[in-house]
Amino acid sequence: MSDTRYDVIGIGNAIVDIIGRCEDDFLVTHDAPKGHMRLVDAATIASLYADMGPAIEISGGSAANTLVGISSFGGRSAFIGKVAGDEFGKIFAHDIRAAGVDFNSKAVNGKDPTSRSLILVTPDGERTMNTFLGISTDIDDGEVDPAAIKAAKIVYLEGYLFDRPDAKAAFRQAVDIAKSGGRKVALSLSDGFCVDRHRAEFIKLIHDGIDILFANEDEITSLYETSDFEEAAKRALTDTDLAALTRSGKGSLIISHGERIEIPVDPVEDVVDTTGAGDLYAAGFLYGLASGKDLETAGRLGSIAAAEVIGHMGARPEINLAELSLKKGIPT
Amino acid sequence: MSDTRYDVIGIGNAIVDIIGRCEDDFLVTHDAPKGHMRLVDAATIASLYADMGPAIEISGGSAANTLVGISSFGGRSAFIGKVAGDEFGKIFAHDIRAAGVDFNSKAVNGKDPTSRSLILVTPDGERTMNTFLGISTDIDDGEVDPAAIKAAKIVYLEGYLFDRPDAKAAFRQAVDIAKSGGRKVALSLSDGFCVDRHRAEFIKLIHDGIDILFANEDEITSLYETSDFEEAAKRALTDTDLAALTRSGKGSLIISHGERIEIPVDPVEDVVDTTGAGDLYAAGFLYGLASGKDLETAGRLGSIAAAEVIGHMGARPEINLAELSLKKGIPT
Repeated sequence: MSDTRYDVIGIGNAIVDIIGRCEDDFLVTHDAPKGHMRLVDAATIASLYADMGPAIEISGGSAANTLVGISSFGGRSAFIGKVAGDEFGKIFAHDIRAAGVDFNSKAVNGKDPTSRSLILVTPDGERTMNTFLGISTDIDDGEVDPAAIKAAKIVYLEGYLFDRPDAKAAFRQAVDIAKSGGRKVALSLSDGFCVDRHRAEFIKLIHDGIDILFANEDEITSLYETSDFEEAAKRALTDTDLAALTRSGKGSLIISHGERIEIPVDPVEDVVDTTGAGDLYAAGFLYGLASGKDLETAGRLGSIAAAEVIGHMGARPEINLAELSLKKGIPT
Repeated sequence: MSDTRYDVIGIGNAIVDIIGRCEDDFLVTHDAPKGHMRLVDAATIASLYADMGPAIEISGGSAANTLVGISSFGGRSAFIGKVAGDEFGKIFAHDIRAAGVDFNSKAVNGKDPTSRSLILVTPDGERTMNTFLGISTDIDDGEVDPAAIKAAKIVYLEGYLFDRPDAKAAFRQAVDIAKSGGRKVALSLSDGFCVDRHRAEFIKLIHDGIDILFANEDEITSLYETSDFEEAAKRALTDTDLAALTRSGKGSLIISHGERIEIPVDPVEDVVDTTGAGDLYAAGFLYGLASGKDLETAGRLGSIAAAEVIGHMGARPEINLAELSLKKGIPT
């Protein structure tokens, strides 16, 4: 096989998270659908911010979190995403590079600001996201570096990017380049509402080019418009060869043609903030696949990474995931 | 007594903390004196930031942290400090207001940026601060609102502000206004190196106008140029009437003419980040005094608040301090 400089290269929204705690009634008052991501405009985010309590700022972005997790496992990863030259853009670029992820996109000045997401964490640890999409969605096929895509074992696409038309073209181009180079392509569905907004296109993309599909229960049932999880899981295999389906406290289900593996959750003492749980599950799973582990081991790495990230505020690991998984009996 | 809208009004640097973890040798390589605050220029902070690992951004500033703590105890507090209209300024202003602290200073555009501090936390939980002073020190006597000062039971001054000349004038003016209104004035010495830079002026200020002095062991021994803590404590009472001296793991000593009270530390399971320990001790102590508690109870409130803040990253309380102290048997 030709050069594989990266285990995984990802394309996603470059986002800085603004995370604060709130009570459930705050979500109701502000029409924020609990547990989901909604897109908000500049006025709405300003008004929400004015009303919410003290916050902390931490780099986020779904695929970006996954790539940071892969790096923490010892994998080699790269991120394609867009920031502005503002403070949040500098924070994002610093943090992802400091985490060992290659990030070569140039900051764009004079257009939109860096994207940000107000994340409200309720007392049960559930996160509700209010995302203001700035420059991060301004990814078109010009951003996709064919050499970098071809140099990765797996190309990972963040479903959230589907919320803007240009990014879809970038996705399709990345898929074509990856396929022509014999690489695997993975997709995360990101959010049930996001799936609902782009169902037909998602199904076409998965059917045409996705080898590995990540979704939670809400997303996969939304995709196939059924309330029956097992039915949705079965349907997924008509469109792709491998799906890793997360089910919050019920663990995850990995299915492929001929294999069905249930992975239990890794126990967590205190669920502080679920932000990034799916992203870090994907990190462990993709790192596992890229480093030649079997599906069950890859799933267990996903569970370990997800458990770490929900034990604290923020969507990126606070400790080294390679050391953590070694402690749990899985040398990476 | 006339109107006391506030329990405590504070004057200090408005700072956003950029907090990351590092090993001890990182501090050595970058000439950062462990456990201290050093002032750095724009080039140095940029180079440190480039070298350090991923970070989180949280509002800080010594006196500001104290006022947020007082608010969390249920006290009424206000902050006088200066930010720019940049992202960090917006973050600072949002967070302090969201914490219930009155903050009426207008953002200043087109001059210096908002001040920031790179805080490096070593594995032992100790914090080492690298502060870039921007607009926050641009406080002069025009900033000091006499009506607000007179409306507070206690005026609290942050020693760090002494690092710029204009701020000293603001301090002296605040002291004069407070005194003329029969209010108490408290000062925190902030840092041993800061004391060393301004020893004579600090002693004069304390002697002339400070009723309540906060210092840690390092600061009080630096002030009186002795290695003997008890000797330094005795000397403090020649300049002021009440001193609360913190001694890290050894608890604190409260001394006044005729009283000497030793306060044990409130136990902490895991010291994560000591940033804000002194600031939150001052919060509990000042809230206690302002609400008419005896010195020992005020000291215990200080210990409880300090223990809360060193149990997590960041220098502001994550939980309600009134509820926490009630749980510990001290209703506020």
